[in-house]
Amino acid sequence: MRLSAYFLPILKETPAEAQIASHRLMLRAGMVRQASAGIYSWLPMGFKVLQKIGQVVREEQNAAGAQEMLMPTIQSADLWRQSGRYDGYGKEMLRIKDRHDREMLYGPTNEEQITEIFRSSVRSYKDLPRMLYHIQWKFRDEVRPRFGVMRGREFLMKDAYSFDVDYEGAKRAYNKMFVAYLRTFDRLGLKAIPMAADTGPIGGDMSHEFIILAETGESQVFCHKGWMDLGISGIEVDYQGDLQPVVDKFTSLYAATDEKHVPAECPVPAADLIETRGIEVGHIFYFASKYSEPLKAEVQMPDGATAPVHMGSYGIGVSRLVGGIIEASHDEAGIIWPESVAPFKVGLVNLKAGDAECTRVCDDLYAKLNAAGIEVLYDDRDERPGPKLAGMDLIGLPWQLVVGPRGLQNGLVEIKHRRTGEKHELSIDSALSKLIG
Amino acid sequence: MRLSAYFLPILKETPAEAQIASHRLMLRAGMVRQASAGIYSWLPMGFKVLQKIGQVVREEQNAAGAQEMLMPTIQSADLWRQSGRYDGYGKEMLRIKDRHDREMLYGPTNEEQITEIFRSSVRSYKDLPRMLYHIQWKFRDEVRPRFGVMRGREFLMKDAYSFDVDYEGAKRAYNKMFVAYLRTFDRLGLKAIPMAADTGPIGGDMSHEFIILAETGESQVFCHKGWMDLGISGIEVDYQGDLQPVVDKFTSLYAATDEKHVPAECPVPAADLIETRGIEVGHIFYFASKYSEPLKAEVQMPDGATAPVHMGSYGIGVSRLVGGIIEASHDEAGIIWPESVAPFKVGLVNLKAGDAECTRVCDDLYAKLNAAGIEVLYDDRDERPGPKLAGMDLIGLPWQLVVGPRGLQNGLVEIKHRRTGEKHELSIDSALSKLIG
Repeated sequence: MRLSAYFLPILKETPAEAQIASHRLMLRAGMVRQASAGIYSWLPMGFKVLQKIGQVVREEQNAAGAQEMLMPTIQSADLWRQSGRYDGYGKEMLRIKDRHDREMLYGPTNEEQITEIFRSSVRSYKDLPRMLYHIQWKFRDEVRPRFGVMRGREFLMKDAYSFDVDYEGAKRAYNKMFVAYLRTFDRLGLKAIPMAADTGPIGGDMSHEFIILAETGESQVFCHKGWMDLGISGIEVDYQGDLQPVVDKFTSLYAATDEKHVPAECPVPAADLIETRGIEVGHIFYFASKYSEPLKAEVQMPDGATAPVHMGSYGIGVSRLVGGIIEASHDEAGIIWPESVAPFKVGLVNLKAGDAECTRVCDDLYAKLNAAGIEVLYDDRDERPGPKLAGMDLIGLPWQLVVGPRGLQNGLVEIKHRRTGEKHELSIDSALSKLIG
Repeated sequence: MRLSAYFLPILKETPAEAQIASHRLMLRAGMVRQASAGIYSWLPMGFKVLQKIGQVVREEQNAAGAQEMLMPTIQSADLWRQSGRYDGYGKEMLRIKDRHDREMLYGPTNEEQITEIFRSSVRSYKDLPRMLYHIQWKFRDEVRPRFGVMRGREFLMKDAYSFDVDYEGAKRAYNKMFVAYLRTFDRLGLKAIPMAADTGPIGGDMSHEFIILAETGESQVFCHKGWMDLGISGIEVDYQGDLQPVVDKFTSLYAATDEKHVPAECPVPAADLIETRGIEVGHIFYFASKYSEPLKAEVQMPDGATAPVHMGSYGIGVSRLVGGIIEASHDEAGIIWPESVAPFKVGLVNLKAGDAECTRVCDDLYAKLNAAGIEVLYDDRDERPGPKLAGMDLIGLPWQLVVGPRGLQNGLVEIKHRRTGEKHELSIDSALSKLIG
């Protein structure tokens, strides 16, 4: 993509309303624009990141055996009355009346709706287990939306739902999602720590929050320093097999939010305890028959009797993750994208757009990188080198490929790795093969 | 995907509320479930088709130079007051008050919002032309939603918006979208005819509806029979070049809806005139400064003066197309998917799941087709052959690969082409190479 033709409205000034780094950087880098309080439009570069995060989430959900579907945003109030949550949800729920004065709502979550679909379609234990998910916009009418997409009102969430005949089946589903979450956040370049959680308005009796460590996080968290060396990558996962050992491994080290942490009872000696702040990016729940009983989602069991199914629900904040990744990965100069979700892998900078040789080399590099299937943002604008390089640092693409007249006299271009800041002067061919790999 | 593990709740009975083929077939084939009047959940197979149609739309939009972004579903009423449309839109607009009693709405379209984004980001004629689009859920509170996803209240739409300095630029953008639409519908296996249209609530002075011919369509349409032989496939398109000749070619033959058709003035002799019904699947508008003037989307021109930009908007009904394609492509037995949007290319049927050899051959075929990157739905259930084959016809995958004990005695399996009904008995290897191609 040529920057001259790309809709990327970079801001020079830091917007006054942005209090945290991700909000500030997303506005400055032209990723989002506020539409109303807590409601954002995603401009092309922000949308690209959102899509890439969604794709990683989707791949890991599919690998764990969940099937993708899509529920609507607007739901009927009646369904929520059946579950008993309509009144309890309070003002966070965006309530709507349609033209016939029927009460509707913009779904803050989908337990009721998926249970209703399941109830109307499944009759027998033979049709279980099932795991369904969707990635859809939700609305929670926060009193004070803030921190950009981190605490927005309209937000994109992946929510999965499992249906099993008994506790053992439900626990297997829970474990699959637990492991899928570890893998998902790992692929996104995040250290997300599962912490035993209260079940809150979703309800249930087994729950973990997945929390990434970041100074600007909303919750105080405490964890064993051993977490810094613990990761899922390299661990082989067989979703058909027993995942309990993996889950045990990742719940053996202490980790708790301030809601659960009681200093006097903490099993970790002070020297081994990390105290910092964290951002919740995922949350998993097992809640037995909390919804299947009132909504009558029952199956016929082998003995002929009917029984309500055991359910769980599993959420990942997809739009929130865009902010979360930036909180976890930025510096003074701007964003530093992990390659897995970077909007482009390479930023190609023509330092002197008026120079014929610079432009020839850049056009050629651009064509070759594109032909190799590498996503390139090509700054072909007639603009001074300073702002061009600062802009590239700001938007945080993993690699910068910088072409200027001085280097070209010796046949050299510069490659900069955004994360480490390392720069190398290389021949054009070496630079190409370094990027194409 | 193994059918035994797939959430595909096929209905044996035709639902009473479904009046047209696509609605009936989408419910029976387990593609959608109604959530409320005119609001649907997309089950895994329906969702897959929706995604594939969206992907074709996206590829053709990108090819035409439009950039993808995403605007939110909920908009502020203030913006619509600025454009003057808030009161005029009537009860079709879903109006909402948030917890602070601020007036909001669920966007039925996005002219105001994109204009606001553009206004706050672009200053100079040098930043034009621009074309932006998104694929997002919209809401129109129809009095009587019906015909399933064809006339729903919550629906998925691609809407693109162009910004140019003058009429000539806007006309170039209009032509790009005109041609992109021809290509999009062609790839979806549809004959969509552009018909000069009234501009309705969007406004403007140049507009075409793209209408597919189908007996169950909502409008009466009239067109020259030459349309039956006219298609975009094979015509080379250069989006950087002059597209006027292509547009001229596709507007030279007569085509009009009953709103525009005046029998006494029709230039086509009766013998050459086709009269049938049609379904609107796309609509493009040029409306000059209708929104840029009230919303002050102005740029500085070369002479230093400011001028409102010339805009157009361009919609495709993505969720409606799922129904539209079925209306145009089905028979008594069920849906007939074009390969470009089929949820799976092949339906593999094990006629006797209890038979070891049948199961061995099916498992092997399933593994090989998957390894070749072919999407297969494998009916591995222990069920009678009749319902299995009827189910495959109903869901309408392009190819059926049927494995039974009788054929296997001679080393043969059966391939059926759903559209033509042609069946061939082939060796296992020949069947594989026919499907893998």
